[in-house]
Amino acid sequence: MGKNLLIAQSGGPSSAINAALSGILMEAAKSPEIDKVYGGIHGIYGVISHQIADLTNQIRTAEEFKLLETTPGMALGSCRFKLPPLEKDTKVYEKLVEIFHSYNIGYFLYMGGSNSMDTVWKLSRYLKDKNEDIRVLGVPKSVDNDLSGTDHTPGFGSAAKFIATSMEEIIRDSEAYPINSVTIVEVMGKESGWLTAASILPHHFGENAPHLVYLPEVPFSMGQFINDVQEAMKKERAVVVAVSEGLKFSDGSYVAQSREDENGYTSVGQVLERALVSTIGGKIRSIVLNVLQRCSGHLLSAADVIESRRIGTFAVRNVLNGETGKVLVFNRVSNSPYLINVETVPVEQVLSAGVKGFPLEWISPENNDLTQEALNYLLPLINGEVEYSCKAGMPVHFRFDLTPCQPPKTEP
Amino acid sequence: MGKNLLIAQSGGPSSAINAALSGILMEAAKSPEIDKVYGGIHGIYGVISHQIADLTNQIRTAEEFKLLETTPGMALGSCRFKLPPLEKDTKVYEKLVEIFHSYNIGYFLYMGGSNSMDTVWKLSRYLKDKNEDIRVLGVPKSVDNDLSGTDHTPGFGSAAKFIATSMEEIIRDSEAYPINSVTIVEVMGKESGWLTAASILPHHFGENAPHLVYLPEVPFSMGQFINDVQEAMKKERAVVVAVSEGLKFSDGSYVAQSREDENGYTSVGQVLERALVSTIGGKIRSIVLNVLQRCSGHLLSAADVIESRRIGTFAVRNVLNGETGKVLVFNRVSNSPYLINVETVPVEQVLSAGVKGFPLEWISPENNDLTQEALNYLLPLINGEVEYSCKAGMPVHFRFDLTPCQPPKTEP
Repeated sequence: MGKNLLIAQSGGPSSAINAALSGILMEAAKSPEIDKVYGGIHGIYGVISHQIADLTNQIRTAEEFKLLETTPGMALGSCRFKLPPLEKDTKVYEKLVEIFHSYNIGYFLYMGGSNSMDTVWKLSRYLKDKNEDIRVLGVPKSVDNDLSGTDHTPGFGSAAKFIATSMEEIIRDSEAYPINSVTIVEVMGKESGWLTAASILPHHFGENAPHLVYLPEVPFSMGQFINDVQEAMKKERAVVVAVSEGLKFSDGSYVAQSREDENGYTSVGQVLERALVSTIGGKIRSIVLNVLQRCSGHLLSAADVIESRRIGTFAVRNVLNGETGKVLVFNRVSNSPYLINVETVPVEQVLSAGVKGFPLEWISPENNDLTQEALNYLLPLINGEVEYSCKAGMPVHFRFDLTPCQPPKTEP
Repeated sequence: MGKNLLIAQSGGPSSAINAALSGILMEAAKSPEIDKVYGGIHGIYGVISHQIADLTNQIRTAEEFKLLETTPGMALGSCRFKLPPLEKDTKVYEKLVEIFHSYNIGYFLYMGGSNSMDTVWKLSRYLKDKNEDIRVLGVPKSVDNDLSGTDHTPGFGSAAKFIATSMEEIIRDSEAYPINSVTIVEVMGKESGWLTAASILPHHFGENAPHLVYLPEVPFSMGQFINDVQEAMKKERAVVVAVSEGLKFSDGSYVAQSREDENGYTSVGQVLERALVSTIGGKIRSIVLNVLQRCSGHLLSAADVIESRRIGTFAVRNVLNGETGKVLVFNRVSNSPYLINVETVPVEQVLSAGVKGFPLEWISPENNDLTQEALNYLLPLINGEVEYSCKAGMPVHFRFDLTPCQPPKTEP
């Protein structure tokens, strides 16, 4: 008799995480070693409170798998929950083992970003220490692309494609009027500039815009920014600027917070817009791309979806092959032709390396543009379009039946 | 020897105005009465200053027509320029006639919103008074859908589709976490609630969200809003609210301006977000959909593109048939099956009726939801998907050669 597989999702939503889930479910259905497939509802937080749904055979047709792959958000629900340090408190670990036993879980795949990989690390270590034959692998996901140990993360390519496409469309919009203007586009990425970097992709397609780009890896200077914009305006009628939401001044304070008052949050775009209005004047506007970047299921990168599905299938094969305490990663073998290997690395290796920032050597000496290497890295990740099902003009989304189920009855 | 056709675009960009231009160019190419096709660069403003490009035969293939139709923005450039009252100043009209003569213009099609229709009205009246055989028709365009005399405006359907799709994706995103939250989505439409109304389209597809919707046609009450949100939170974990950027209090002041300080513009979403943070508390966020609503060429409504192309072809036929001083409009013959006739109405009829607001009888008695009639009106307008050309993962956009040309040599 086989064991059961538990899957859960955690961290910020992304539009490719369900494609990885699709790959897991496809491979699990083909694997005789796996009896049932369970889904933890709202991540490890749900697992702890017995919020576990039976996913076995919920998806049967190719059409349903495709629907799941083009559904944004987290099909199993997410959480932001960190397990306590093993040295301090083992109660929650004991409870998890008890639940794993009651559902006869032999394999646990946890999908998410660095917090989820922290869970993979702690839990796999605890299970090994207790000699439990329950294997845990991490399936990474991050629109931010700031996880170490992997060439890129599932979800980044689709977010990058949305940003690049939106940027190109905003460029078209900005050109309309015969007047000087500045359009500031604020892109996600509190800790790293990968997503903001994606906004330069229109350069590869003959656009001069965006004319300036600022990443959080470099301290931001308001004086230099205003000067850069003034210089750009000498050459261009409609100047377009891409900025990261995570921009910081040299003292480490966020630009977005610098004008915050009792009224609450002010975006980077608004701070820069106000700075330009009070110095340069004229038509200045700021646009925040916001969560659409991570949930635009109607504009997915085919490369991202295919790779996400693939990392899901590999996760099942690797956990069945005996691996535990590891993370699935992409290794870029070559850029042209674009070749990716799916591999595993020990989870502690990913965690100890910390946030993977955008390479400083891919930022121009003026700190307001990126190099050809950056374009070469980004281009394969947005390649290809994904068809999605529509009904009466709207995308169709997939929904699991997430009714919590009882543990299976143990045989007498 | 035939006459020449002049086309120009004006007002805010939209993602379907180039489809109407495509229809005009297709029909003009088929019409032996038309020799050359000229484009005014940046609207009537460009025409006045001899910024006129020769568009004849710039587009030849079906592929190029399709590229133009899926290119957002204004392919000919736009302006915000109103002709002076005829009673006050006729100099600019005299200049226009002179330019029309030098380019042998017999037909002028002006594409845009109500300001552009004002130009059509004034110019056609002047030309009639002067017994000039130069005919002028208006081809409407407005993402806001607030032009009178027409069932809807070209451009509205695609913007509505982007809003509805984004709303559904934001709903998926908002469901991710097992915590109570409020997501406020701010939609365009300073004067009318049509675009905000489109955010309820997910209701037709089984979604409860958005749970509340507020249009500018009804005075906004902050107390009622906070109360509505509290009631919604009793039933829903992740409350989603759609609001119009044009919301006004009962004293006529904009909600967006009410907290404006020396720092500049504050969005409606931010004002409401702050009001909820200081009363209800918890996870509150606001999202401004911004200009993506009007420039998302990658997510067009097929109904909108087909109708826009059709209104363009009819504009050419009608102007050749001798009509002038009129506007092309849509007349909805029936809802099911959805049938639209393209007709013309006198431009003064469109202008005198003023802004077409969202019907009050389609707003629920509680002022926070819409009726089935609203859904029935909206649904056909977002129907169908438009394929667009991609290269290496990015949409390909069309560009005219807009080099200003000299008037044709008159025959000796």
